[in-house]
Amino acid sequence: MDHNRAPLWEALQKHHSYTQANFHVPGHKAGQAFDQEGSLYFSSVLPFDLTEVGDLDDLHDPIGAIKEAQALAADAFGAGQTRFLVGGTTAGVLASILSICRPKDKIIVARHCHQSVFHGCFLAGATVIPIPYAVDPSSGLELPISPEDIDRLLIKHPEAKAVILTSPTYFGVVQRVREISKIVHRYQIPLIVDEAHGAHFGFHPQLPIPAIRDGADISIQSTHKMLPAMTMSSMLHAKEWIDMNQVDLYLKMIQSSSPSYPLMASLDLARRYMMTEGERQLSLVMERIHFFRKKLEKIKAVKEIKRQSTMDPFRLTIESSYYTGYKLAEALESKGVYAELSDERKVLLVFSVGTQLAELDILYQTLMDLHVDKQVAKSKNKPMLLIPREGEIIPYAECRTRERCFIPVKHAIGKRSATHLVPYPPGIPLVLMGERIHQEVIDYLLFLLTLGGKVRGLIEYQGDYWLYVYQEIE
Amino acid sequence: MDHNRAPLWEALQKHHSYTQANFHVPGHKAGQAFDQEGSLYFSSVLPFDLTEVGDLDDLHDPIGAIKEAQALAADAFGAGQTRFLVGGTTAGVLASILSICRPKDKIIVARHCHQSVFHGCFLAGATVIPIPYAVDPSSGLELPISPEDIDRLLIKHPEAKAVILTSPTYFGVVQRVREISKIVHRYQIPLIVDEAHGAHFGFHPQLPIPAIRDGADISIQSTHKMLPAMTMSSMLHAKEWIDMNQVDLYLKMIQSSSPSYPLMASLDLARRYMMTEGERQLSLVMERIHFFRKKLEKIKAVKEIKRQSTMDPFRLTIESSYYTGYKLAEALESKGVYAELSDERKVLLVFSVGTQLAELDILYQTLMDLHVDKQVAKSKNKPMLLIPREGEIIPYAECRTRERCFIPVKHAIGKRSATHLVPYPPGIPLVLMGERIHQEVIDYLLFLLTLGGKVRGLIEYQGDYWLYVYQEIE
Repeated sequence: MDHNRAPLWEALQKHHSYTQANFHVPGHKAGQAFDQEGSLYFSSVLPFDLTEVGDLDDLHDPIGAIKEAQALAADAFGAGQTRFLVGGTTAGVLASILSICRPKDKIIVARHCHQSVFHGCFLAGATVIPIPYAVDPSSGLELPISPEDIDRLLIKHPEAKAVILTSPTYFGVVQRVREISKIVHRYQIPLIVDEAHGAHFGFHPQLPIPAIRDGADISIQSTHKMLPAMTMSSMLHAKEWIDMNQVDLYLKMIQSSSPSYPLMASLDLARRYMMTEGERQLSLVMERIHFFRKKLEKIKAVKEIKRQSTMDPFRLTIESSYYTGYKLAEALESKGVYAELSDERKVLLVFSVGTQLAELDILYQTLMDLHVDKQVAKSKNKPMLLIPREGEIIPYAECRTRERCFIPVKHAIGKRSATHLVPYPPGIPLVLMGERIHQEVIDYLLFLLTLGGKVRGLIEYQGDYWLYVYQEIE
Repeated sequence: MDHNRAPLWEALQKHHSYTQANFHVPGHKAGQAFDQEGSLYFSSVLPFDLTEVGDLDDLHDPIGAIKEAQALAADAFGAGQTRFLVGGTTAGVLASILSICRPKDKIIVARHCHQSVFHGCFLAGATVIPIPYAVDPSSGLELPISPEDIDRLLIKHPEAKAVILTSPTYFGVVQRVREISKIVHRYQIPLIVDEAHGAHFGFHPQLPIPAIRDGADISIQSTHKMLPAMTMSSMLHAKEWIDMNQVDLYLKMIQSSSPSYPLMASLDLARRYMMTEGERQLSLVMERIHFFRKKLEKIKAVKEIKRQSTMDPFRLTIESSYYTGYKLAEALESKGVYAELSDERKVLLVFSVGTQLAELDILYQTLMDLHVDKQVAKSKNKPMLLIPREGEIIPYAECRTRERCFIPVKHAIGKRSATHLVPYPPGIPLVLMGERIHQEVIDYLLFLLTLGGKVRGLIEYQGDYWLYVYQEIE
């Protein structure tokens, strides 16, 4: 296939050059009306912010330029079928789950999956069977999911409709997708991989194999996160045998009926970029990162947190012997250096094909300056996140029929939470909507609050913390 | 409030000017990597395609710039509370319904609402009580919904959780929102108005009153359709008394967890534009449209289709005595003039603050050229769309528990459709997902197909048309 082409982008350019008069939405009419100051920055892209007119095809029923662009993407990413998403990976995750689960169907889900996976299960009314996971005590990072655990859960719940994993995780841990897929396929059900952070996989021999080439039946990638596409533009990849009729039905429900053409075009262009310049550019940046990692060893009080398992080289998690993760991120920000995320302990830095040598130099210099008088690694007692490792079954169909009650936290123990309880940053739910609330978790959250941390889902009210729970579910 | 400000846009500019190094998503890193040709058009906006770092706030939990921008929007649009949407009006419609209906709850819905309303009901598992509507035989346009019909339905279904209307309709018919709201509020339930096509209402004394100022409790507007904002950026407006906890919960589920900042900023800028230049610009364009309407009378074979009820002046529906709507739109397109929509009979033209005088001149000249030898109005028998006026109750909670079966169309009579059946253009469902399939509707759809029309939901297979239906529901 000719990866120098970008069919959707070409169609937009052609349409624009051919147009004499525009009597359709959007209201800015190719930028003819727009805020004057904003126009300086938006005007070059607005002529391509169009709608389903002329030969611009229709995302929800593609027969022309979008169909061609998706076929090129499927070829580039090694999928049988690919769908462009304008609602982010969220949209693809929701649609995948809804397409597979009817109310009360069981689905096996990694407990550390992104919220959107649990939202999909909630909307489908599915029953979540959580895959337990362990945290490596030295690094604080999750260990890869054990294929044996999945085998055990499938033996116990052979009627489950699918298995869902996140790979790589936020911190770059890659799951053992191939081994797991072999187990899952024995039950003739699909393996779905939320690969939001792994759109660059497969474009360089030194990068991990992308899930769709490694045994997954559906994978969803945030193209925007790791490749040069606009935020919120993602792709869903599926094997040839997946019935896309079902997936498309739900994508049409979840996504806007006025999808953004600049976002879709940026997917087309990101694919072209990766197929024409990707490998060379990835090599270049990997070399820069390698060199930076080496240099970083000179700063004794800063070290990389990693594991022995397969890790994404484009993510770097660091900790300082002298600063908490929050404080380190704050100090970096005060110098105009922005990280992806921080928590009590660590700071996560994300690189991509766009990362410049000068930026790595600034990062190095800033870390050096921050630790200039602190050249001895100091060990520090840092609180470890208390996580319900085993997880528990969540009956979302029942949750959805229940009233939500607003009660003080002290009365919530043993009840099922009607919202996620999320310490932030980093924003990873400690209690999922539908999970039972345990005393130790509340103690930990209240402890975080006394430290000045914040917890979404806990609301200050009448001098106490309150939250929403479901009326009792048996 | 100071409507010369644009807090979110200002925060983005400040962040950009302050940044030294970027170690977060998206992967294009402020445009540092992007397809070379695409970069010519995208590069000026990419520095603002950012994520939740620094002071850029968080759409899903706003405390800073986004909160301020939303407060200014609420003030401008006359709402108690406003939410920016990046998933289009679709996202706001889905979240509103999900926030109100639990499975098997009844909801009263105008039968001609946009698909997204029925998708919301489907996802909520709600039971749809349809509001019947009549079509004006001379114009072919829907008549406004009668308040008496809503009164009658509420007496019959007093346990209904909400009433949903679309106003204005696609063709610009404005509903009697105030009268209807008074009836609905007697039952202490909310009136939700899908105002996708009416974001300009209220910004000029000659325009209709926007729903949120006219008795609606929630309205959702496609800011991008009628105002200068990017496609897919919409707003949800609510009265002070609406519990946004619930709405926010579902917005977080439905919308991307990586919302697009250019889209959000364009909402902030569109509000500023309308509050500073809006009325003047609307006056100017209304004058142009008025003048164009007058001139159009000279072309005898073309006439505007309209009704006596309140109509949006920014929409013009025309028909030709010599061309079908399809053929007329095609002829316009061949001259680079693009309309919003066409059907067998008519062509819909949409104006906005961006509409230029030159474009109206081109439109006039093109219509004139097309009818130069055809100066006598000729009456033509045009097929009227056969519509199930009364509608029927749709039990979505049960639909969702049923298997979908793929069967030939001749065996589908009397069964409930598992997809929308949609002749297109114009793309308005004739049979909704969950509605029962009647012989006359199938006859009409097959007739359209023999004319060369297209129908989404009917699939050619083994020399026949097939479709998906639900296993029998009692």
